[in-house]
Amino acid sequence: MKKTVTEIRESQVKISDAFWSRIQEKVIDVVIPFQEKVLHDEVPGVEKSHAIENFRIAAGLSQGEFYGMVFQDSDVAKWLEGVAYSLAVRPDPGLEARTDGIIEIIEKAQQPDGYLDTYFIIKEPEHRWQNLHECHELYCAGHMMEAAAAYYRVTGKDRLLHVVERLADHIIGRFGPEEEKEHGFPGHQEVEIGLLKLYHITGKEKYKDMARYFLEERGKNPDYFYEEKIKRGWSHWGQYSTEKLDVSYNQAHQTIYEQKEAVGHAVRALYMYTAMADLAGTDGDDRLYKACRTLWDNIVNQKLYITGGIGGDSEGEAFAGNYELPNDMAYAETCASIAMIFFAHHMLEMDMDGAYADIIEKELYNSTISGMQMDGKQYFYVNPLECEPGVSGRLFGYRHALPTRPGWYACACCPPNLIRLITSLGKYCFSESDSTIYSHLMIGQKAELGKADIRVETSYPWEGKTEYFIMPKTKEEFTLAVHIPYYVDVNRRETSLTVNGEEMNLPELVKKGYAYITRKWEKGDTLCLQFPMEARKVYANQHVREDAGCVAILRGPMVYCLEGADNGELIQSLRIPKEMRAVPYTCEEGILKGNTLLKIDGFRMVGSEELYSEKPPVKEKTVLTAIPYYAWTNRGENQMRVWIQEE
Amino acid sequence: MKKTVTEIRESQVKISDAFWSRIQEKVIDVVIPFQEKVLHDEVPGVEKSHAIENFRIAAGLSQGEFYGMVFQDSDVAKWLEGVAYSLAVRPDPGLEARTDGIIEIIEKAQQPDGYLDTYFIIKEPEHRWQNLHECHELYCAGHMMEAAAAYYRVTGKDRLLHVVERLADHIIGRFGPEEEKEHGFPGHQEVEIGLLKLYHITGKEKYKDMARYFLEERGKNPDYFYEEKIKRGWSHWGQYSTEKLDVSYNQAHQTIYEQKEAVGHAVRALYMYTAMADLAGTDGDDRLYKACRTLWDNIVNQKLYITGGIGGDSEGEAFAGNYELPNDMAYAETCASIAMIFFAHHMLEMDMDGAYADIIEKELYNSTISGMQMDGKQYFYVNPLECEPGVSGRLFGYRHALPTRPGWYACACCPPNLIRLITSLGKYCFSESDSTIYSHLMIGQKAELGKADIRVETSYPWEGKTEYFIMPKTKEEFTLAVHIPYYVDVNRRETSLTVNGEEMNLPELVKKGYAYITRKWEKGDTLCLQFPMEARKVYANQHVREDAGCVAILRGPMVYCLEGADNGELIQSLRIPKEMRAVPYTCEEGILKGNTLLKIDGFRMVGSEELYSEKPPVKEKTVLTAIPYYAWTNRGENQMRVWIQEE
Repeated sequence: MKKTVTEIRESQVKISDAFWSRIQEKVIDVVIPFQEKVLHDEVPGVEKSHAIENFRIAAGLSQGEFYGMVFQDSDVAKWLEGVAYSLAVRPDPGLEARTDGIIEIIEKAQQPDGYLDTYFIIKEPEHRWQNLHECHELYCAGHMMEAAAAYYRVTGKDRLLHVVERLADHIIGRFGPEEEKEHGFPGHQEVEIGLLKLYHITGKEKYKDMARYFLEERGKNPDYFYEEKIKRGWSHWGQYSTEKLDVSYNQAHQTIYEQKEAVGHAVRALYMYTAMADLAGTDGDDRLYKACRTLWDNIVNQKLYITGGIGGDSEGEAFAGNYELPNDMAYAETCASIAMIFFAHHMLEMDMDGAYADIIEKELYNSTISGMQMDGKQYFYVNPLECEPGVSGRLFGYRHALPTRPGWYACACCPPNLIRLITSLGKYCFSESDSTIYSHLMIGQKAELGKADIRVETSYPWEGKTEYFIMPKTKEEFTLAVHIPYYVDVNRRETSLTVNGEEMNLPELVKKGYAYITRKWEKGDTLCLQFPMEARKVYANQHVREDAGCVAILRGPMVYCLEGADNGELIQSLRIPKEMRAVPYTCEEGILKGNTLLKIDGFRMVGSEELYSEKPPVKEKTVLTAIPYYAWTNRGENQMRVWIQEE
Repeated sequence: MKKTVTEIRESQVKISDAFWSRIQEKVIDVVIPFQEKVLHDEVPGVEKSHAIENFRIAAGLSQGEFYGMVFQDSDVAKWLEGVAYSLAVRPDPGLEARTDGIIEIIEKAQQPDGYLDTYFIIKEPEHRWQNLHECHELYCAGHMMEAAAAYYRVTGKDRLLHVVERLADHIIGRFGPEEEKEHGFPGHQEVEIGLLKLYHITGKEKYKDMARYFLEERGKNPDYFYEEKIKRGWSHWGQYSTEKLDVSYNQAHQTIYEQKEAVGHAVRALYMYTAMADLAGTDGDDRLYKACRTLWDNIVNQKLYITGGIGGDSEGEAFAGNYELPNDMAYAETCASIAMIFFAHHMLEMDMDGAYADIIEKELYNSTISGMQMDGKQYFYVNPLECEPGVSGRLFGYRHALPTRPGWYACACCPPNLIRLITSLGKYCFSESDSTIYSHLMIGQKAELGKADIRVETSYPWEGKTEYFIMPKTKEEFTLAVHIPYYVDVNRRETSLTVNGEEMNLPELVKKGYAYITRKWEKGDTLCLQFPMEARKVYANQHVREDAGCVAILRGPMVYCLEGADNGELIQSLRIPKEMRAVPYTCEEGILKGNTLLKIDGFRMVGSEELYSEKPPVKEKTVLTAIPYYAWTNRGENQMRVWIQEE
């Protein structure tokens, strides 16, 4: 399954959308400047980052000790990547100049042999590359490669690109299949993605080969990290022991071809799957595609929360077993959902199946942006599907699942990951092949594509009307393929696809989730997709213990939830009737202004005052208010549930 | 509320009961001999106990180091107590002789000043009494006092009694309200119970006064343990820090009169409440009674599992918040349920309210004996109300809740606690006051009481027929008060109380859960209580998040559960109809032989294969089999649920 499409550059798309523009603005106006200050240790009350200072010390521009996590460098890299995309969204010469300054420091910090990791440059130069299992040197390298690729793609500036090429060459010089080289691979996958991005820009096969090497070496010797530890005779963190390690946490227990179940640390896993899918599509490697597909199917059919959340096991931020999806104890890390988009995007490039675009949508509108407070100032790492004040964030087993978004964390992974996702959103809207323009997402925008410029106007995600205004650049016939979300019934009379007002036979046009319209497009041609948007009740598989007897309410791509703020106490005593009547309305005031909420005729079970009683609870009619899940806990700490019992 | 009844001695009652005799036999034939071997380090494959060897070393009879937990002595004490009661159930001269031998060693281990704790005698003699918070010296002392009291009550032998009197005097010499004494109290309550038992036997006020001192000193200075730590400048276990301690775990955050909510470590709490209730009744102390009642009400109305399990927070084996009763993550320690019986028993002695006897029943038939495998060879510390193989006992948050009973633990608290409960069961059957004999439990037995000998024959807990055959020892009129369980409707025609076949007006006779029959009893008088026993559906309070939409099935005192062994996979997809039809039947073979099981016409929800689907699951009729909760997981690891969704 070779990729048949080329990736859209971030700068080809300008988003102008009622829903997304607000979020992009928050990220650009609030999060990027805030993180810039954090990286420079300029925010009082936020734990010192020291990340840029570490680079300055490593560069000899400052005196001092390394401070922070061993992967502190990656905070700078992720911010740089986000800044790059943000400059495509909204040019900012001041920000760009400051960024160039930081890149200069990074360049100076790089060692003559190409090595670049401030922890080891400053603190343990003699221990470089001796602890791939825990020390994140390759992880930091990968993020810097991604940053360099992004900055080059948007600005055309190649200074950081040259830095990471030298770094990549240094890595290639040390690791690889050759006998004289070390046969290692990273404890936290990421460098594989970075190397592939470097390949896509430079076309240099050695980077792709190195990515393949790291992927395929993984799990060949499941004891590699153990042997590495015994060889060096010491441990960085925690107690040194000679016990064997459970490397399924690092997806190093089997080769990538043998792995049939998504296990271990979710972000590590999804970064690996992302690189696997990119490489499979780049090389047209069917065996690798199948490996990706197996893992994809396992996630989507057994391990994905309805919100797109990933990771049912908070210990190790990890996948739990099949169908093990606890709601109040969910981990569902924001970063894992973001990484799922990366994975899906590469799968989609190989196989234009709407199922992949559906997952991108699910992630975008739910478990990714739920990581950010409406004001852009507070962030969730963990995105539970149920919250119980007094228990969530406090009791054993629930301590990770906070009831409200806290501010900046010392370990800043999720907010910068959100920055780079939201600022590069344009990239996920379209793909283009020789014959076809694919529209994956219904987001208002202007796109400058190869065969046409397209302006999109939409009422999505609140209503199902999207118009594409096409300005072809060619007189030849080409195809516009528009993604039809999985929940749209193309056979309904209310669903329509028109070109210049003329209704097309939609059911005939749809193949695997895309409607294909092939014609000689004329300047000003307008394609309009319309479908009714109704609240839907969704049931979980009976294997999902935690959702038994419950339904989730969805409307369009949005998962809804009930919060105490609207529904009073004891959310668990609320019931959705089997025949549901839900009325959507636009919230006119407060923090949720502009969101479509739902009024649902439901019930409240009112029971005995006793702890236990033979008296059945009485069903009282009540009107429930459901809000989009992503917006939960923006009105203070309160109860929340996505899965509501049916009655 | 002064106690108006005298406690029955263990030897006054001989149990002869289809249900309980089997369990008593298992305890006497299997558990006591097994633990004896463990205490002597004679069981291959079981972690060394060293408990008796510690006493031998302390006594100078052996050379070596202390080994085991700091409270290892209490294993010997609890076993001794159990042995004492077992000798009342079934005399065993060999066992008694061996026990005398152990008591001799204990006596020799006691120091000239009365001190007795082998950890400190052997290992840290200079550190005696410096760490009341963590070191369990008073806890071990309390258990030895209980053992001595029991052994004296049953055998009349006072050697151990004199040992613990000297120990108690030593403690009284060191701690107390006097200025020159230390104003301490134990980190783990228990000595208060022991001191009161010593008082009840010896009549010496000083022991009761000391119990009161420990109870009332508690929480007066919530920083006592902190100050103790700072004063000694070191810590026994864990890191030494100068941070303040959360002593609500030890119920030392407030005085016993200020405490309104049952918090912290459940066994510590319930041992304290037990001593409080004993003291309140002994002294007729209304203020103390009210303190007990407040805590009782909090447990029974907000914190008690339907099985009688106590402790919703596995971290710290502790009470969780009000209504926070997770089923699959329950702690519900066997010891805590046993301690709840102790507490209830003393409350009952003050106030003959059937509600207390109901709780004793609930505990006896459910969350205590669920701690023991049918064969008596394996034990649960944790008694969850839901089990999911692959998750229970394995995943973070569930690791304490094992899916099957393991063998002997190194920290042997629950099995010896079960021994002493089961062997002393007779004590809980009757109380006697000047005017009245109270029957609390329907257990087949012969009881030699003050005013009469009574033989009880019963089909309980499987059917509701109990006969009392009375042999009065007095010609005077006296009252027989028979506990009527809370679930019995005395107004139903099928419910009857007859004396010599003549039906009494039961509703008129009943006061606070007891039917009072006053007459001049004649030799051979027969009282017969009969009530229909039907499966009951019980609903939890709407505040209990984990039981929302569910029902529990009870019949008589028994809580039932559904297991995979009978009901196939996906127990969570099973439903109990609103109008339930349940047919009881006696299990005729296998490990559950003799138990009454239930066949219930129910449903299985069969849903889509997909992880999420808009297609509602289909209700299929099925016959469910429910078994008594206490007997769960006797047929291998499988799914189990007490709370089943209603449909």
